[in-house]
Amino acid sequence: MIEYRNLRVALLGAGSVGAQVADQLLTHRDELAARIGAGIELVGVAVRDVDAPRDTVFPRELLTTDAESLILGSDIVVELMGGLEPARTLILQALNSGADVITANKALLATHGPELFEVAEQVGAQLYYEAAVGGAIPIIRPLRDSLAGDRVERILGIVNGTTNFSLDLMDTRGETMEHALAIATELGYAEADPTADIGGYDAAQKAGILASLAFHTLVPADAVYREGITEVTLEQVVAARKAGYVVKLLAICERLTDPVTGIEGVSARVHPALIPDTHPLAAVHGANNAVFVEAEAAGPLMFYGAGAGGIQTASAVLGDVVSAARRHVVGGPGVAESTHADLPVLPMTAVTTRYQITLVVVDEPGVLAGIAALFQNHGVSVETVQQSVASRDAAGQPEASDAATLVIGTHAASEADLAATVAALTTSSVVHSVTSVLRVEGL
Amino acid sequence: MIEYRNLRVALLGAGSVGAQVADQLLTHRDELAARIGAGIELVGVAVRDVDAPRDTVFPRELLTTDAESLILGSDIVVELMGGLEPARTLILQALNSGADVITANKALLATHGPELFEVAEQVGAQLYYEAAVGGAIPIIRPLRDSLAGDRVERILGIVNGTTNFSLDLMDTRGETMEHALAIATELGYAEADPTADIGGYDAAQKAGILASLAFHTLVPADAVYREGITEVTLEQVVAARKAGYVVKLLAICERLTDPVTGIEGVSARVHPALIPDTHPLAAVHGANNAVFVEAEAAGPLMFYGAGAGGIQTASAVLGDVVSAARRHVVGGPGVAESTHADLPVLPMTAVTTRYQITLVVVDEPGVLAGIAALFQNHGVSVETVQQSVASRDAAGQPEASDAATLVIGTHAASEADLAATVAALTTSSVVHSVTSVLRVEGL
Repeated sequence: MIEYRNLRVALLGAGSVGAQVADQLLTHRDELAARIGAGIELVGVAVRDVDAPRDTVFPRELLTTDAESLILGSDIVVELMGGLEPARTLILQALNSGADVITANKALLATHGPELFEVAEQVGAQLYYEAAVGGAIPIIRPLRDSLAGDRVERILGIVNGTTNFSLDLMDTRGETMEHALAIATELGYAEADPTADIGGYDAAQKAGILASLAFHTLVPADAVYREGITEVTLEQVVAARKAGYVVKLLAICERLTDPVTGIEGVSARVHPALIPDTHPLAAVHGANNAVFVEAEAAGPLMFYGAGAGGIQTASAVLGDVVSAARRHVVGGPGVAESTHADLPVLPMTAVTTRYQITLVVVDEPGVLAGIAALFQNHGVSVETVQQSVASRDAAGQPEASDAATLVIGTHAASEADLAATVAALTTSSVVHSVTSVLRVEGL
Repeated sequence: MIEYRNLRVALLGAGSVGAQVADQLLTHRDELAARIGAGIELVGVAVRDVDAPRDTVFPRELLTTDAESLILGSDIVVELMGGLEPARTLILQALNSGADVITANKALLATHGPELFEVAEQVGAQLYYEAAVGGAIPIIRPLRDSLAGDRVERILGIVNGTTNFSLDLMDTRGETMEHALAIATELGYAEADPTADIGGYDAAQKAGILASLAFHTLVPADAVYREGITEVTLEQVVAARKAGYVVKLLAICERLTDPVTGIEGVSARVHPALIPDTHPLAAVHGANNAVFVEAEAAGPLMFYGAGAGGIQTASAVLGDVVSAARRHVVGGPGVAESTHADLPVLPMTAVTTRYQITLVVVDEPGVLAGIAALFQNHGVSVETVQQSVASRDAAGQPEASDAATLVIGTHAASEADLAATVAALTTSSVVHSVTSVLRVEGL
């Protein structure tokens, strides 16, 4: 067994993401330690005002206003303050003190990324930022590592939840832009000042980060062409849908050749666009995000999930914390492949699933009740019963038949109970045959 | 500038994936070196028969039958032979010689994974296997690293391309299972002996790998409950679609509690299942793969892409090669964040996109030809023109109107040409108004 040494984690900021990160670090402390091969100790949370009311689980004595002292002596510093300063100065202090740094600060990366990465490389520290783009969706690591041997040609991303939520409401519920934005604000998807979202500034920062990483080329946020969604009308959205398209605010990063100058380069832009309703991005609803990547060898790939939210974004931050901690312990993925959890592997008899069973039964009164009772008696609860439309003859009249087809959907049932039910059905005098038994998943 | 030292890469196997890996290592040598911060040298390709005919770009003098000598002195060994032996012995030799190992061998990992990972940890080497599950789709790294701070609750995966291709043909084209499998074989999606695919064995090996990684618990392939697709009938697929479902072969890994014993554990299973047609997995067509992950904090995530194919799988292998090489160079992600490519960032004027333009025009003969000529004269090529159905009055008759609405789709055009076109349209005497100008992406 590896001997644990506690790694000291400092947290800067206790907003919606920061509070979740602190809570999870404390709640899942033992599980994280087992995964890392070392203990993790949250040594403090730097905030502007320790007395501000906040709804958190972590002990208030962890709060401090002295971020600089907190950073000194920490192995890992997690910056979730947002904004350019003092975030930039504190991250530089942390890197220079030898700490690895984790940040979700897309504005800072879009503005001062090159400086931060250069300092990190000089001092041999790492800067992680999985949460800066796409919230919980792993997109930074796949681009940086998994596609490191490939050549990214193009990225189409839905990277702002507020605008996707609003456009989706217009498309699916016929809301006007104004009303859709009001609903987004009411539900907490939009900030009090939604300019960064609806103006496309947030998406442009993310496009710059994605393009820089994908093309190994500095693409600052102000080099990203930007249009927001304010000009999009309900009429456009409705007409688009009729024509087989969906309107989305896309972040588009691509390699291309300037048709005028012939120069080969890269481009990043954010604007509303029509995409075919069959495109995988067209099915990204609500405040979800998705990044569609086209690479030379890999072909098209898509990464989909929650693009924002405190606990969702905390998942990405914590993944970075574990990566950084593993690097401190063994200089690699640590005990990533270990089977420390060693949970029992349960047999199929432990599984309960829903089923859909198709039966041909005698078509007479009382049969349905009898079948339902048979399920009930074997511990399988029926959720839905549908009788198939009888086949029709050439004149369009239902054919005379002494048989009817039933499609029965069950609640979750065990394999054993279901098998017993099917066995009983096949010997029942009112059942001609059991024609299909299929499990139902993904509900 | 970092001083390069060449890293020696040995390749075991030159099948469809191996040949692509060798070709890409040679073709993209300089670009890969820049990304890694060190040169990469393919020192040899071990095969059973150096004289066998093969369709490859890399020089035949790299071929050798002496895998053991090739491994000695290599920094990175890429195993793409498949099968259990001699793959297992050679990987152990490579690890023990201090090399990092990359493999796509799911059968080997499902059978001897724990032994291989234990040896790797003992000697401080790394074993990478992104290509073993989901072909080109980054799924191993996200599960291992990005979700390392989260708690995976369930995985639903379409992880076998042959079976998904066949079931999709049944669903979308009404083919029988027999005919669908014949087409899959003809198109090269199915092996000569498709038992591993259609029997669910391939998917079960992948389910074991995913479950082991997600739950930090050894789940051998033979602990995975398995049903293939051979019993699935066209009637079931058609009836499922009518009822709002799609039939997919799913690999399902989940945490659960045995309802009989109360024991908490994990379960992995592979079987055909109905999923709602609105589920993201329902839209995974053809030979594509997708892995849907439900994590406690992150919520639902999906990873989608090509599940097989020589060049696609080579992308995942090469990503692992770069990761391993970066670790050799600096013990971390290397120059991942560098902007070595330093491509020009092109302005929006370099971008060409398709457009959809909606116009209200005077409804008289010859207007359409005039509008088309106007586009043509400004260098914008018209692809489609649709005239909207005129609005109808209360009696259902088209309303008398001197105006018609045109929706014009263009071929790719530059911003400047399009802007000039729109300017000309707005001053045209036959145009009442330009009501919408939107870019079209994702075609």
